[in-house]
Amino acid sequence: MSPENDDSADPRGDLGVALIGHGFMGAAHSQAWRTAPAFFDLPLRPRTAVLVGRDVEATRSAAARWGWRRTESDWRRVVESDDVQLVDICSPGSTHVEIAVAALEAGKHVLCEKPLANTVAEAERMAEAAAAAAERGVLAMVGFSYRRVPAITFARDLVARGAIGELRQVRALYLQDWLVDPEGPMTWRLDKAAAGSGSLGDIGAHLVDAVQFVTGRALTDVSGLLHTFTTERPLLGEVRGLGGTASSERGQVTVDDAAIFTACIEGGALGTFEATRVATGRKNALRLEFSGTGGAVAIDLERMNEIEVYDAGAPVDQLGFRTIYVTEPEHPYAASWWPTGHGLGYEHAFSHQVRDLVVALAAGEQPTPSFAEGLQVQRVLEAVERSAADGSRWTPTAPASAFTRPASEPPATTSPATAAAAS
Amino acid sequence: MSPENDDSADPRGDLGVALIGHGFMGAAHSQAWRTAPAFFDLPLRPRTAVLVGRDVEATRSAAARWGWRRTESDWRRVVESDDVQLVDICSPGSTHVEIAVAALEAGKHVLCEKPLANTVAEAERMAEAAAAAAERGVLAMVGFSYRRVPAITFARDLVARGAIGELRQVRALYLQDWLVDPEGPMTWRLDKAAAGSGSLGDIGAHLVDAVQFVTGRALTDVSGLLHTFTTERPLLGEVRGLGGTASSERGQVTVDDAAIFTACIEGGALGTFEATRVATGRKNALRLEFSGTGGAVAIDLERMNEIEVYDAGAPVDQLGFRTIYVTEPEHPYAASWWPTGHGLGYEHAFSHQVRDLVVALAAGEQPTPSFAEGLQVQRVLEAVERSAADGSRWTPTAPASAFTRPASEPPATTSPATAAAAS
Amino acid sequence: MSPENDDSADPRGDLGVALIGHGFMGAAHSQAWRTAPAFFDLPLRPRTAVLVGRDVEATRSAAARWGWRRTESDWRRVVESDDVQLVDICSPGSTHVEIAVAALEAGKHVLCEKPLANTVAEAERMAEAAAAAAERGVLAMVGFSYRRVPAITFARDLVARGAIGELRQVRALYLQDWLVDPEGPMTWRLDKAAAGSGSLGDIGAHLVDAVQFVTGRALTDVSGLLHTFTTERPLLGEVRGLGGTASSERGQVTVDDAAIFTACIEGGALGTFEATRVATGRKNALRLEFSGTGGAVAIDLERMNEIEVYDAGAPVDQLGFRTIYVTEPEHPYAASWWPTGHGLGYEHAFSHQVRDLVVALAAGEQPTPSFAEGLQVQRVLEAVERSAADGSRWTPTAPASAFTRPASEPPATTSPATAAAAS
Amino acid sequence: MSPENDDSADPRGDLGVALIGHGFMGAAHSQAWRTAPAFFDLPLRPRTAVLVGRDVEATRSAAARWGWRRTESDWRRVVESDDVQLVDICSPGSTHVEIAVAALEAGKHVLCEKPLANTVAEAERMAEAAAAAAERGVLAMVGFSYRRVPAITFARDLVARGAIGELRQVRALYLQDWLVDPEGPMTWRLDKAAAGSGSLGDIGAHLVDAVQFVTGRALTDVSGLLHTFTTERPLLGEVRGLGGTASSERGQVTVDDAAIFTACIEGGALGTFEATRVATGRKNALRLEFSGTGGAVAIDLERMNEIEVYDAGAPVDQLGFRTIYVTEPEHPYAASWWPTGHGLGYEHAFSHQVRDLVVALAAGEQPTPSFAEGLQVQRVLEAVERSAADGSRWTPTAPASAFTRPASEPPATTSPATAAAAS
Repeated sequence: MSPENDDSADPRGDLGVALIGHGFMGAAHSQAWRTAPAFFDLPLRPRTAVLVGRDVEATRSAAARWGWRRTESDWRRVVESDDVQLVDICSPGSTHVEIAVAALEAGKHVLCEKPLANTVAEAERMAEAAAAAAERGVLAMVGFSYRRVPAITFARDLVARGAIGELRQVRALYLQDWLVDPEGPMTWRLDKAAAGSGSLGDIGAHLVDAVQFVTGRALTDVSGLLHTFTTERPLLGEVRGLGGTASSERGQVTVDDAAIFTACIEGGALGTFEATRVATGRKNALRLEFSGTGGAVAIDLERMNEIEVYDAGAPVDQLGFRTIYVTEPEHPYAASWWPTGHGLGYEHAFSHQVRDLVVALAAGEQPTPSFAEGLQVQRVLEAVERSAADGSRWTPTAPASAFTRPASEPPATTSPATAAAAS
Repeated sequence: MSPENDDSADPRGDLGVALIGHGFMGAAHSQAWRTAPAFFDLPLRPRTAVLVGRDVEATRSAAARWGWRRTESDWRRVVESDDVQLVDICSPGSTHVEIAVAALEAGKHVLCEKPLANTVAEAERMAEAAAAAAERGVLAMVGFSYRRVPAITFARDLVARGAIGELRQVRALYLQDWLVDPEGPMTWRLDKAAAGSGSLGDIGAHLVDAVQFVTGRALTDVSGLLHTFTTERPLLGEVRGLGGTASSERGQVTVDDAAIFTACIEGGALGTFEATRVATGRKNALRLEFSGTGGAVAIDLERMNEIEVYDAGAPVDQLGFRTIYVTEPEHPYAASWWPTGHGLGYEHAFSHQVRDLVVALAAGEQPTPSFAEGLQVQRVLEAVERSAADGSRWTPTAPASAFTRPASEPPATTSPATAAAAS
Repeated sequence: MSPENDDSADPRGDLGVALIGHGFMGAAHSQAWRTAPAFFDLPLRPRTAVLVGRDVEATRSAAARWGWRRTESDWRRVVESDDVQLVDICSPGSTHVEIAVAALEAGKHVLCEKPLANTVAEAERMAEAAAAAAERGVLAMVGFSYRRVPAITFARDLVARGAIGELRQVRALYLQDWLVDPEGPMTWRLDKAAAGSGSLGDIGAHLVDAVQFVTGRALTDVSGLLHTFTTERPLLGEVRGLGGTASSERGQVTVDDAAIFTACIEGGALGTFEATRVATGRKNALRLEFSGTGGAVAIDLERMNEIEVYDAGAPVDQLGFRTIYVTEPEHPYAASWWPTGHGLGYEHAFSHQVRDLVVALAAGEQPTPSFAEGLQVQRVLEAVERSAADGSRWTPTAPASAFTRPASEPPATTSPATAAAAS
Repeated sequence: MSPENDDSADPRGDLGVALIGHGFMGAAHSQAWRTAPAFFDLPLRPRTAVLVGRDVEATRSAAARWGWRRTESDWRRVVESDDVQLVDICSPGSTHVEIAVAALEAGKHVLCEKPLANTVAEAERMAEAAAAAAERGVLAMVGFSYRRVPAITFARDLVARGAIGELRQVRALYLQDWLVDPEGPMTWRLDKAAAGSGSLGDIGAHLVDAVQFVTGRALTDVSGLLHTFTTERPLLGEVRGLGGTASSERGQVTVDDAAIFTACIEGGALGTFEATRVATGRKNALRLEFSGTGGAVAIDLERMNEIEVYDAGAPVDQLGFRTIYVTEPEHPYAASWWPTGHGLGYEHAFSHQVRDLVVALAAGEQPTPSFAEGLQVQRVLEAVERSAADGSRWTPTAPASAFTRPASEPPATTSPATAAAAS
């Protein structure tokens, strides 16, 4: 039989994708664009059309490896390209605003990696552009991929169906340890001018989004601090391969090693947050615990196929956290993968993100999280920075309207921040 | 053979003990006074001389059960009694100061349950009395029993011998859930006039002492909040047995359900603290994690025979937390109990406390923690209250001299609180 | 008030106890006799009357420490002593039969440590003596203390109330590692003449009793092996304190390092058993898992305050093992100890054993496990030995009547051993 | 820039792959062929050339989804096809021998899913064909993918470098629970004529291979049983979608629900094995523990990114299992994926398998496991069947030469089977 696997017989529309950036996130997104169509029934047919990178050789090599049809070195060319319907932005945060706005204005859908931008001002421009584009049917999404880890999606479902009753407390930690060694070298990630932020923006942003996503409620006020334990680090000398020689000179670390904050959550709950890169021994431990009057839910992404669920209404001698392996067909996304008990890994959330994005695009509906939601996360992070600069004083995060509340959610009632300040 | 087990042949001196109070703590201390001599070689011979309680019948019943030789209903009588050399105070916090001061002045050693007192002013009086008594060889100790849980003592040893390098971060949580149900009834423990404090003083005090004990360093500044989720609860109607009927009236809850704070620790480390009674599903989870440049140590008292230790200097492919079962003869206190692998329970720490106290008394040395240390913990708690009342502003805990620093400890260098405020 | 804590006012009868042996088990039993009356309402008043040991000085020292009123060096004297109503046998297995029979004939109740005897023949004599004594109201119990670990008692309750449906499979492991080092010295415990048995009788006996206790069903057939990895070990030279010098001579190890067997369980279930002293890194891990058509229960005594329970009838997206902290007042024995979440340790099961024994004695009822049950466990162990000696052939354990079945238990239906042999 | 991503510039040779079968394994292999080239530097360029399946429509649909260029309904056509250099067999076990032999004779390399065949006789024919083909440079591999789970590969490395000293015991369990419900319907998997075997061949085969792989030693003798708890199940009535109505008729289950066996391992170690589909609550728990004189290693595939390692040579107060997250660049395969701490899932082992296979093919070296190794696993399984049919008598697995021993491995010394039989 001759090659029948051409596209002509496929009644679905094409979705030509241009990916900007070929680092760690580029790899993850490439794998998702390649994999999602193999496991999910998608209403559009994604095509890995163009990979964009400034280094021509590296970009070509990555494109060959990851299956992109052609490459470009200038993102401006793909924004106007006919074979592109969606621009997927995985380049550094400082470039997001320019690319996203141009793409949206050119009528291309946009998927933009988190954090949405390096500043609130940039994020506001992007949210405005997205709102304007939406009126023309051009849609934008920010890539908080952890929302699509099945355990986290399932936690959201459980909370939404009332499994934990009225929310009381949240514990949210993102623990890494790659900055523990004070003689570890200086890198651009530790330079505020280049990176925009340290733990707060890099991993704290995930915490804020995950907590708001699972609870369906906004952080309204924050009190926090940013701290840098190691303020000077050796500059890298000559680079050799991935490593290099240490220089005898030292550079200034200008971003935070750790960001710690407390937050008031709409409806009267309290959250504690810690994002740190000096939690010795913890490699990538995103831990969430949601306590309510009717139960609790706990997650640790180092065991990402598990969720712990506590039902306060169980018989007293049966009370305890149930460890649920989130791989039954009834669990989010699981039916499309392997049989029960065969776990997923880090990258699968990106395939789920592609799936949900494509479904929304085909339906002409706003994918979530929207740029407005990404902006609201930025505002929370900025409020933490302002609080930290002001002696950890309680600081409102934003106008209440900034948070896109799920339709069925009750309005906020009392604010622990107000209470805390007045106690 | 006739009764040979009389005491006349025992060359050790007697230590007549009077125990004030016969509630939960009275039971734990009774068990310790009875048990410690059976498992440890004590240089004095404790005698369970007098049990003191206001309810004559209940006190007699408890004395008969727990092996106290006689009872009294007025503590003033035992303070001057010849058969008493030590007064063990397990009565409510509001009574501590009067009893302790009187006992010390009467020349009796004192063991006083935590928290030392309900107010800093009371604690100061007690510390002064203890200092004066010490000059006369009369010694006082405050009962932070968790210091003597083998895993915590071992954590202290590990930190002291440099196993985690330079301390960076501490996570300290004490999670309970008995106030989760908003319809749970009002009790005296929720009335500030009677209880003095809520989660902060009751279980937060343990966190503060444990962290300072393990690290050998004081908390110097705090920023925190106290919060009460359920401000009104049904009053109890008629009491029936342990329960009773709920009344239709409601009473005001005037203590905190949850206390959350961040602290600067001498030497430039940061600590996060949470003491809460609304952590749904967590029954008595005291969790500590100490992260340093060379390693980390983690403890969860719901698995109290275990400690997790991370050595950052292990070969890269061998990095990980080691779960050590703290029951080898080489572990603190363990050689006196059962073979390796046979775990201890909650009450054993009280026997260890008795052991260490008796050894110190026999040697004429100050047992630890002293009243001065108990006072310093009170100051930290009060600083949290002041910070909470002042919008979570950073608040110094005390004059630096308040903390009894181990001899070999380096002086504090930088203060994250200052840095935080200035960042 | 003068010493009111005399016994004259106590309406309860006395139970004078003589303890034979002052090793590890003597310490555990002493602690139990001292502690049980302080935490449980006992219908008799236990008195720690006599401690018996051959070494006069060591026995006196132990008695003084543990609170025994007098000592004897010959057990025959206490068997006839008026101040003794119960003989508690903690001496080596080879002495059990003679002491127990004499004590029962002298009208003393008996508590005998496991295993009941070193041989089935001895155990049969003991069971006969116990049956005869029971007709005179003199009662005997064998000390399988692990039955009274709350998690195991609770597992029995769950199985009895149908929580796991029809039993299918059991996994029972007792893992220790103190014989891992092939250069570890020879001891009497490794000499069959002295010790009777190796892992099989020492720790395998616990597995057999625990499985039969929890399931309420007997092992009917076994297929297994015994293996000794290190058949020669260095003899100890001169003993110095607890250690000593290694000799250059070697002795023969004549007991098993590991006993592994499979068993048919009444009603058509299958069990796998492993008792080993060479499970490197496992200190005292007694692990049990019971799987049935309706659920499962799992226990690991290294985390003895926890039990894991699986309900196969839960909604599919809620399936999982629930980790229950067995310290609610509703859990077995827990209400007499500490508040929820405050765990127990190894020794508490012995206090529970004393409690249940004293309650049965006061009621004139047979305490469990009886000597007949102890005998039946011996028969199972002997069947494993015979199977091992016969190429692991399936071997019946005993006449079906040997097992004391709970009243409500269904009769056995099919035998996997028969099926296995015929398959 | 025009499409530059054509293959003409790629200097690597092509490896046209034909995949036979498009069920669960077909999906896993498709994902691996698509993914491995994107993450690993492969010396050949795999092409997903042909997907073969009898149902034309279903095969086309799967091919379109998974990226196969064309389809065939008869495997005989692809065996002779010029665009195919490798045949990947994922069809039922009964078809393996015919396809594999034909493919090898036609000069195609072969990857064949486990178990190699349904009978030893078939497996022998396949091993002979592979041996003959190898002389012509045509290579065959059997797909025991779990060898390439990083934790298992790393366990092998640890054992090989002496980390656990001399092997003593192995515990190997594969626990599933999908047959717990006795009213679950009859399927072809429960019919011996169709499936060949039950738990033993399906999941027990994985245990045997994994244990031999990690230890580098063969199972030499086995004693075991096979058991079917539910011998009749309702036949499916009318099929509706994935489900269907239950019929009132019942069919005979002719394969085992559970296979339990003990094995002697070359060099004098003992292994216990359990493969079961009625381990209530366990979804896909492959658990391995290797105990030796110098340490131990434990793995549970429900937490597949972790391995627990015990070093018996650690200081006594530091003894414990270290939980290593197997995601450092130094761990097997990990450097090609994500940063430290970002876990992999079930399917990644298949990509590793493709990687290792392609590397071996390019080098002209025998990929592992070879068909000879697959045959030896079949012989072990058959020995278990024979032992089960013979009252669990000890049964030798094969001539010693059947196991492909790693070059550096010491010869076997003593046999516990012999010892067991003679004890």
